[in-house]
Amino acid sequence: VGDELRTGADIGADDRGAAMHALLVELFPIARSLAGPGIRSTLAALEEVTGPLDRLVFPTGTPVLDWEVPREWTLRRAVLRGPDGSVVADTDDCNLHVVNGSVPVRTRVSLDELESRLFSRPDLPDAIPYRTSYYDEGWGFCLADRVRRALVPGEYEVDIDTDLADGELVVGELVLPGSSSDEVLISTYCCHPSMANNELSGPVVTAFLARWLSQRGPRRYTYRFVFGPETIGAISYLSERGAHLREHLRAGWVVTCVGDPGSFTYKRSRRGDALCDRVAEHVLHHLAPGSEVLDFFATGSDERQYCSPGFDLPVGSLMRSMHGTFREYHTSLDDTSFVTGEALTASLHMYQQMIEVLEANRWWQSTAPYGEPRLGPRGLYPTTGAAADAARVVGDMMHVLNFADGTRDLLGIADRGKRPMWLLVPIAEQLAGAGLLREGDRGGGGA
Amino acid sequence: VGDELRTGADIGADDRGAAMHALLVELFPIARSLAGPGIRSTLAALEEVTGPLDRLVFPTGTPVLDWEVPREWTLRRAVLRGPDGSVVADTDDCNLHVVNGSVPVRTRVSLDELESRLFSRPDLPDAIPYRTSYYDEGWGFCLADRVRRALVPGEYEVDIDTDLADGELVVGELVLPGSSSDEVLISTYCCHPSMANNELSGPVVTAFLARWLSQRGPRRYTYRFVFGPETIGAISYLSERGAHLREHLRAGWVVTCVGDPGSFTYKRSRRGDALCDRVAEHVLHHLAPGSEVLDFFATGSDERQYCSPGFDLPVGSLMRSMHGTFREYHTSLDDTSFVTGEALTASLHMYQQMIEVLEANRWWQSTAPYGEPRLGPRGLYPTTGAAADAARVVGDMMHVLNFADGTRDLLGIADRGKRPMWLLVPIAEQLAGAGLLREGDRGGGGA
Amino acid sequence: VGDELRTGADIGADDRGAAMHALLVELFPIARSLAGPGIRSTLAALEEVTGPLDRLVFPTGTPVLDWEVPREWTLRRAVLRGPDGSVVADTDDCNLHVVNGSVPVRTRVSLDELESRLFSRPDLPDAIPYRTSYYDEGWGFCLADRVRRALVPGEYEVDIDTDLADGELVVGELVLPGSSSDEVLISTYCCHPSMANNELSGPVVTAFLARWLSQRGPRRYTYRFVFGPETIGAISYLSERGAHLREHLRAGWVVTCVGDPGSFTYKRSRRGDALCDRVAEHVLHHLAPGSEVLDFFATGSDERQYCSPGFDLPVGSLMRSMHGTFREYHTSLDDTSFVTGEALTASLHMYQQMIEVLEANRWWQSTAPYGEPRLGPRGLYPTTGAAADAARVVGDMMHVLNFADGTRDLLGIADRGKRPMWLLVPIAEQLAGAGLLREGDRGGGGA
Repeated sequence: VGDELRTGADIGADDRGAAMHALLVELFPIARSLAGPGIRSTLAALEEVTGPLDRLVFPTGTPVLDWEVPREWTLRRAVLRGPDGSVVADTDDCNLHVVNGSVPVRTRVSLDELESRLFSRPDLPDAIPYRTSYYDEGWGFCLADRVRRALVPGEYEVDIDTDLADGELVVGELVLPGSSSDEVLISTYCCHPSMANNELSGPVVTAFLARWLSQRGPRRYTYRFVFGPETIGAISYLSERGAHLREHLRAGWVVTCVGDPGSFTYKRSRRGDALCDRVAEHVLHHLAPGSEVLDFFATGSDERQYCSPGFDLPVGSLMRSMHGTFREYHTSLDDTSFVTGEALTASLHMYQQMIEVLEANRWWQSTAPYGEPRLGPRGLYPTTGAAADAARVVGDMMHVLNFADGTRDLLGIADRGKRPMWLLVPIAEQLAGAGLLREGDRGGGGA
Repeated sequence: VGDELRTGADIGADDRGAAMHALLVELFPIARSLAGPGIRSTLAALEEVTGPLDRLVFPTGTPVLDWEVPREWTLRRAVLRGPDGSVVADTDDCNLHVVNGSVPVRTRVSLDELESRLFSRPDLPDAIPYRTSYYDEGWGFCLADRVRRALVPGEYEVDIDTDLADGELVVGELVLPGSSSDEVLISTYCCHPSMANNELSGPVVTAFLARWLSQRGPRRYTYRFVFGPETIGAISYLSERGAHLREHLRAGWVVTCVGDPGSFTYKRSRRGDALCDRVAEHVLHHLAPGSEVLDFFATGSDERQYCSPGFDLPVGSLMRSMHGTFREYHTSLDDTSFVTGEALTASLHMYQQMIEVLEANRWWQSTAPYGEPRLGPRGLYPTTGAAADAARVVGDMMHVLNFADGTRDLLGIADRGKRPMWLLVPIAEQLAGAGLLREGDRGGGGA
Repeated sequence: VGDELRTGADIGADDRGAAMHALLVELFPIARSLAGPGIRSTLAALEEVTGPLDRLVFPTGTPVLDWEVPREWTLRRAVLRGPDGSVVADTDDCNLHVVNGSVPVRTRVSLDELESRLFSRPDLPDAIPYRTSYYDEGWGFCLADRVRRALVPGEYEVDIDTDLADGELVVGELVLPGSSSDEVLISTYCCHPSMANNELSGPVVTAFLARWLSQRGPRRYTYRFVFGPETIGAISYLSERGAHLREHLRAGWVVTCVGDPGSFTYKRSRRGDALCDRVAEHVLHHLAPGSEVLDFFATGSDERQYCSPGFDLPVGSLMRSMHGTFREYHTSLDDTSFVTGEALTASLHMYQQMIEVLEANRWWQSTAPYGEPRLGPRGLYPTTGAAADAARVVGDMMHVLNFADGTRDLLGIADRGKRPMWLLVPIAEQLAGAGLLREGDRGGGGA
């Protein structure tokens, strides 16, 4: 997909695919949870790409919207040993082996007693599933069904060396200011332990997107990048920033599941036709035709919070294979080999293009709306290039001049003419330079 | 279809099919017309199912809207005899043999003179057609085309023993009050002589629907059942109730052609997207996918009057094979064998389901619209059942909570999520019980 | 197509096809340009069909909207001779041989110097292309690519005997007044030299349409026919009539490319659903189903000016094969044999039908909207014709009476019922005669 992109400062072949994949491999082993050391060290590693992040800190027990901030979870090691003392599951091998959020336990139990504490996937006999127990005092082990089925009766030794203790929930935030107070939100999450597509692809691509944008040049929009735990992180963040976002947010996206080689999927905002949706669908339509576009639904990732009816923010999500639709989802099969540098790069490029479209989208208005304005005396006729190209450019000029009547932004003008907006951007600028377009009243970065 | 229905007090296999068919067989021989003894005895028989009906009485000559109430017609017997004295047509065999509304005549005519008084269907040589002569002083005989073609020249004896006399037009009405003054209309007609699908299936199903609803339990809506002659009955009824219905009616349906084994057909109200249409199309979509849905058109049955532009009431019609589309229509072939107990039952079930949907449809509004509300502490997580079922229930809860924003009723929430509303009803009630939903301002039975 | 038309004073087989083609042959050799003797003699020839045209005269240099009126161009003869003195291109053979608007030149040049002045179409080796040089001081020759490729090196003799001199641009206008001040615009152009479909078919059909309309009988709308040069003519005309048209114009069409045997193409007005669009699409739908319908786009013919955003007039264009889509376009292949009398006649009939629909379109409103009005006592039941026809007429009456509620014109009533409007016109008039319809508040010729 990346090769097809036509504009943007550094679009095209680049070496960021390898760099992104290397960062993902580095982050993979960390035992993340909603709160605790895992997410802190993850944020620290991301900062090597993004530069310093602000930290919004929510102490355990803080009420956030309808919720309450949980305790921190620290995993040192969790081991399950069989009757003969052999290791059945050990988080030193794979941190998915323990139910995320498990309370500390040291005990011996029979296989019968253990059964309700074991989780496996009969449909994927070699996969260790990912399970959580965030809001009740539970514990358990996850293991491959093939291993589970070989367990023999007898007494098992449980050794879960964890802490559940008061502390704080942290959300990392990076604000890249623009000339306007209108804002764009890029939100991702980093609370999952060792899984690559869902979720490390999200924070990795988001970090590189932030770095690119910080170096890209002047911005019209102000951009807000958010890295936190899923659900409770977005809820905590909204408890702090919700009112502000309701006033200033013009577009936003949740970045998740962007590293697998599957084709793109766009999930619309709850509004369905918000600026984020128009931009994403425009880019997909022209650069990745045939991508799937889904109406908003109330399950999924953090768009659930941003698009809760009280906020109803213009936030969608561009993914590759959507959570829940790929076999590897929420198991140890979602590992670093499932994610490729090429896929990460193409996803990054797509988000860059969406930002380019946002930045270039203006409410142009014709200054000469009565009859066609004359191009010749203004030096607007293309003088180089093939005749067919010249006819295309003149056609595009006429299209922009005709539809720039103050009722549509440039994106709407492009969609009206079934043209990619990036072909019209230089044309609109040329027309504006010749005094035939001026920025209309709804301009200035607005939606 | 009945087997697929999921809710409703007595949905599922029942013995009402046999009872309905038996009532239809009982009513079949009666020589009904617009006004007269036939419709009176029909109403009396229906009352054995519905309980007492109120009677709206319109004396002959009363102006009703643009019309005038006709005289009563009484048929004792009409016989046509051939030159050799043999019986050609006799209403004692089939009351379709005489043109409905014929004036009394006793005369002898040649076959040539008789021809313009005879009606047959060359395309259906064994069928006796149904013809009427309500508003002019005519008479005639209907007979099988095969019989007609065998008639020999000579003098024929006409003996039509009827009365056309001042009297009254009667419309039976049953009102089942609900807690709200918002109303639902169920209208059917019973002016046709011996025909089963069009029309006896209509009053029979309507009568059983009324009985079911009277025993069903508390109602929110007030229901108004109407049994009268077609066209002039609806016009007379509207002359009395039109202003009231314009103020109170929220949904309504004309019940006709609901006994044949064909698939369902829904004809929309003139408004096209009224509550009656949304309910009927929702039920059909989920319980009888592939049914035909037609936009309103100005010919048909009594919806023509309810949907005349001055009234423009929210009245559609759920039928099986629509009038005019089946071969047996308006002939002696539309007999009691053309109608089945199964088809009558399934039609009854469908109307019951439409009423269940109406009754359960509320303007729920989330009380916790900022971010997702927490289900766990409120005991809302499903604790029994398979994991897939639990995920479905949680997904449905999230769906209802997200879309219950005061702009949609529960039916709209169900349609937005492509779910049958009956799956969401218990979920909405559970959420309301936990204080997460309250009934919104447009609630209280409104549309 | 003509044979399928159902109404209109002189629709059906007629001999105007031959007359139109003869006029086109007569006009073909004239060396037209934007201004000058060619367009003047063309207008004079058209007046033999239309009667006298008013002339709007714009002197050279007059500012018109964003433009300026050009000089007149007179072509006496232009010849290009080869090194051996033989004629390579001579406008006495075909006036496309010289670039239209060429300045006078008498010189000798080498083949190398000549190359940039020569125009041919390698894809159509036998076609002489049509090129213009209106707004810069250029000159050149157009020739068949086969001839060009055979040119030998050497000195070529250029003899372009033309004038470019101050004068005037002329637009011919014919106003046929109606009872209302609401107007319909029929606009065509006549600035192209020897080409038949684009463009002589346009002024020829328009002239015959004007003659037909002037003889047709009383008109409700006032019709304005415009004959001028393309682009600058429409711009000049709008500089004079734009404000008036914005107030009075209800529908309009640009007539061009209406003589080839291809199927019909309709290009919508910029508004997309203006009266001109509804009428044209209705007529095409019923008389030429399968015709192509295109949304407005900003390139094309004079609709570009009428539909510039400041004017945004309700002007579309019914064509046969659209400019740019047929092989012969803008070359000597678009000659009098490419255009047929049958195609011209069918196009004329289509425009006539559109005018008939406009004239017959009224805002009928039912006077008896409560229940169905009774047809019998008003003598409205059809008494002649087959039963099926009678049922159709009654159905149409019911349809008109139901939907004539003041929110739709008769065209909208016809479209709502998927019926051709001309079947409903006599029915509406019959109902109006019986007092069941009256003309509504939006009537009187309005849109």
